Amino acid sequence: MRQLFQEIRRNPLLWLLAFVPALFAVQRMKPEAHTLLFGLSVLAIVPLAALLSHATESVAVKTGDAVGGLLNATLGNLTELVIALAALRAGEYTLVKASIAGAIVTNSLFMLGASFLLGGLRHHVQEYNRVNARLQAGLLFLATVALLVPSAVGGADGASKSAFVTSLSLGLAVLLIVAYGLGLWFTLGTHPEIFASAAHGEEEEAPWPLGLALVTLAGVTLLVALVSEVFVESVQEAALDLGMSQAFVGFIVVALVGAAAEMASAFAGARKNRLDLSVGIALGSASQIALFVAPVLVLASYVLGPTPMSLQFWPGAVVMMLIATMTAALVTNSGKSAWFIGVLVLTVYLVFAMTLYLLPPSG
Amino acid sequence: MRQLFQEIRRNPLLWLLAFVPALFAVQRMKPEAHTLLFGLSVLAIVPLAALLSHATESVAVKTGDAVGGLLNATLGNLTELVIALAALRAGEYTLVKASIAGAIVTNSLFMLGASFLLGGLRHHVQEYNRVNARLQAGLLFLATVALLVPSAVGGADGASKSAFVTSLSLGLAVLLIVAYGLGLWFTLGTHPEIFASAAHGEEEEAPWPLGLALVTLAGVTLLVALVSEVFVESVQEAALDLGMSQAFVGFIVVALVGAAAEMASAFAGARKNRLDLSVGIALGSASQIALFVAPVLVLASYVLGPTPMSLQFWPGAVVMMLIATMTAALVTNSGKSAWFIGVLVLTVYLVFAMTLYLLPPSG
Amino acid sequence: MRQLFQEIRRNPLLWLLAFVPALFAVQRMKPEAHTLLFGLSVLAIVPLAALLSHATESVAVKTGDAVGGLLNATLGNLTELVIALAALRAGEYTLVKASIAGAIVTNSLFMLGASFLLGGLRHHVQEYNRVNARLQAGLLFLATVALLVPSAVGGADGASKSAFVTSLSLGLAVLLIVAYGLGLWFTLGTHPEIFASAAHGEEEEAPWPLGLALVTLAGVTLLVALVSEVFVESVQEAALDLGMSQAFVGFIVVALVGAAAEMASAFAGARKNRLDLSVGIALGSASQIALFVAPVLVLASYVLGPTPMSLQFWPGAVVMMLIATMTAALVTNSGKSAWFIGVLVLTVYLVFAMTLYLLPPSG
Repeated sequence: MRQLFQEIRRNPLLWLLAFVPALFAVQRMKPEAHTLLFGLSVLAIVPLAALLSHATESVAVKTGDAVGGLLNATLGNLTELVIALAALRAGEYTLVKASIAGAIVTNSLFMLGASFLLGGLRHHVQEYNRVNARLQAGLLFLATVALLVPSAVGGADGASKSAFVTSLSLGLAVLLIVAYGLGLWFTLGTHPEIFASAAHGEEEEAPWPLGLALVTLAGVTLLVALVSEVFVESVQEAALDLGMSQAFVGFIVVALVGAAAEMASAFAGARKNRLDLSVGIALGSASQIALFVAPVLVLASYVLGPTPMSLQFWPGAVVMMLIATMTAALVTNSGKSAWFIGVLVLTVYLVFAMTLYLLPPSG
Repeated sequence: MRQLFQEIRRNPLLWLLAFVPALFAVQRMKPEAHTLLFGLSVLAIVPLAALLSHATESVAVKTGDAVGGLLNATLGNLTELVIALAALRAGEYTLVKASIAGAIVTNSLFMLGASFLLGGLRHHVQEYNRVNARLQAGLLFLATVALLVPSAVGGADGASKSAFVTSLSLGLAVLLIVAYGLGLWFTLGTHPEIFASAAHGEEEEAPWPLGLALVTLAGVTLLVALVSEVFVESVQEAALDLGMSQAFVGFIVVALVGAAAEMASAFAGARKNRLDLSVGIALGSASQIALFVAPVLVLASYVLGPTPMSLQFWPGAVVMMLIATMTAALVTNSGKSAWFIGVLVLTVYLVFAMTLYLLPPSG
Repeated sequence: MRQLFQEIRRNPLLWLLAFVPALFAVQRMKPEAHTLLFGLSVLAIVPLAALLSHATESVAVKTGDAVGGLLNATLGNLTELVIALAALRAGEYTLVKASIAGAIVTNSLFMLGASFLLGGLRHHVQEYNRVNARLQAGLLFLATVALLVPSAVGGADGASKSAFVTSLSLGLAVLLIVAYGLGLWFTLGTHPEIFASAAHGEEEEAPWPLGLALVTLAGVTLLVALVSEVFVESVQEAALDLGMSQAFVGFIVVALVGAAAEMASAFAGARKNRLDLSVGIALGSASQIALFVAPVLVLASYVLGPTPMSLQFWPGAVVMMLIATMTAALVTNSGKSAWFIGVLVLTVYLVFAMTLYLLPPSG
């Protein structure tokens, strides 16, 4: 417990934890203050995500390579998953899909671009292992393409026959989870050396004892779930007040908030001239959303949601996801980076954000 | 003739030849047993395609490098061409187009992915000449893009002005065949060294004497033509009985059947750690469909078909062809392969197959 | 002045300058001879563009590296900009957009493909610095993607809500110009070595004295502006007479005419086995259209045009721009070239040109 407090004293990001009790207090006293609740829940999720990430890594270190890697890979996007599950239970499928699409775009454009920019401001030209980067970009592209088939075929045909799309989404979810399982076996079992450098980088922080880590993991997951519920309840009214479309909130705000902890690691890696680490986190995290989080949510919708959720995205989201993964593939192709590459990748992200912000709310 | 029988005894695939007389017998006695005829014709085409492939190679070896290469390149997809011509004569343009699109997708996803998987199960990481692979993937991409322009422009504009699309398709067919001729001159005449390894691999089987090879070539082509006719007649009724859409049959069944012989070579190459051979067969065969088979069918439709056939594909097929060739380009970019790459490429193929299978028949 | 005449005597391209006075004479005497005026203005722009290019380079050499590079980069597409401004003032937004799209497609397909073909006819296989080529192709891809977001999102949604598209285009124009400014700082300030070889190649021609260069620059820009005005006035009637769609004129004719001077440099580089130079000019020029010319025209439309111009292109143009930049990225990926690569890239360009030529005028 002392270690937990030490950690909190050392890491200014964790001071935001003060917003967690503040959120619950406001929720009790002013349940109709949607915009305030929205702001507080965003601020409360960031430090919880950081704690979750540290706890996962500590458990991973203690349990040895294979199980630890598995945990790390599976729980790496736990925050995104918990937020999306809260939205799923509330039947907010538009928000769920926007957050899936947004997480892929944010990881492969914002996290990658900001890493290149931050790294490039310190180092003239940064080189990284381009064979691994290409392999990971290839995996991300394939995962995204598989995820987008229902939208592409359904949308291209102008036929949104719902029975067809629903059964296709279910079959696809099963296929993707099988592919994800095989991917874990590949990463941890048969070919761990390809992803070695990325895993290595995170161990610099001091791990917690197993007991503390497990308790933190359980407690913080519960807190994230409670905060997410407030977040999902307040987001729609708050978006109206703030003049933001729901697409913007799901795509940009939720995605940035959910990935805050991973971004901290990726940016630190870039500044230390370890771009392999940054690229691995950004592309790996995006792949995981497509291969694991998205299909789990489809399956969960059969249990938790009012109706089965399909994997049909709105056409603009499809275009953005495809462009984001192709950009990631093209940009990591040369194995070299300089600050302007980061600027251009961020420009594409800003263009997307601007588009979503300006999009009429009805769209 | 003895050699032909020896070959048949040695190669279990050729035992399927027994289905050729069975097919014609059933056709005489039970012409209305569509599903049975469909199944038998599929089983009969596979060994005929293998014989055709071996005969072509034998003629190629005997006639020396230049003419032989020309023959090999031109007749490599003879089975697909003969099946499509049968469908063309019957006016089944949907089936013709589905089989063109399916052959490109099957070659660049299924053949490539299965080669990576089969090779990867034996070898930890396989390397191959990435400069050649990129060149071939680039050719395939350009060929596919050229093929898709009428669909992309026509579809994107929502204007399917048929006169425009028909004359565009005719001009395009002439352009593609000229490009194909120049490509042959490039491959065989000015730059044979780039494609050297792929051609080399096939010579391991004992070639037949020239006379036997020519007779086999002529006779088997005739048989394929006869079997294809039964296949095309029975496919629509059989698809209804089996609950398959026509798109699924053309895209998946015809394409797998037509490419069976090449797949055997590609897979054997992969297991022998000669991925250059596998990649060359898969990408080269797909390019040939786009640059040679498709335009020949457009021109042939003016002679054999009821009306001129255009090159406008349904939007879902366009998306699948583009994704397939981009996947092939991305995946061969690193010059390295491991089993999971194969799994992911096959996953994209399975997703396509599942989509087409579930697609409502009216779509 | 003597130097200017020497230059004219030496360079046969400049003999076309005789068409400039001819154009103005015809305009006075036969203002209704649209097709003749159109032809003369096309012929008059070509040598003016060449003079403009030489004058810019001469000023650039005299003013030292940083300012010179800035001038060269900013004025490199001055001809395209002046023509487009004339069309903008006339309110011909379709023509303006077609010329933007056409310049990107022509630079990245025709200029690149013809360089590969011309170089490949002399040299068996040409190698060039693939890391730089990939970086430049990446920049071009990102620039094009940013430019296309309004069309992609607007078009994909079927919602062409004009207020949304107009404000998005304005925001985008500002973003792109900021990115362009940062790109200049990158190219000239922090990382000049990456683009070194491209800049180096142009200095072989003897530079003019500064005074002559500045006077030429000012005078020729004025002439191009006057000729462009005649061109824009006559183009619509002439296109009708010649049976060409306006899309074809903007996309193909204007783009080829505007880029004539750069093409001469790129092709000369290719024949001298300096493909780095050719690739740099082709891709750099295309990037500049997307990042600088297009947003400047949007901003200028607020001052010069009847209404604000958006960046929403017709869907066919979007497809062509995306395919062109992806082709450029794929083709420059291997760092090797041979004549057939050029043929295939030109084939894609020819396919586009044929499509636009056949397109019904109403489309």
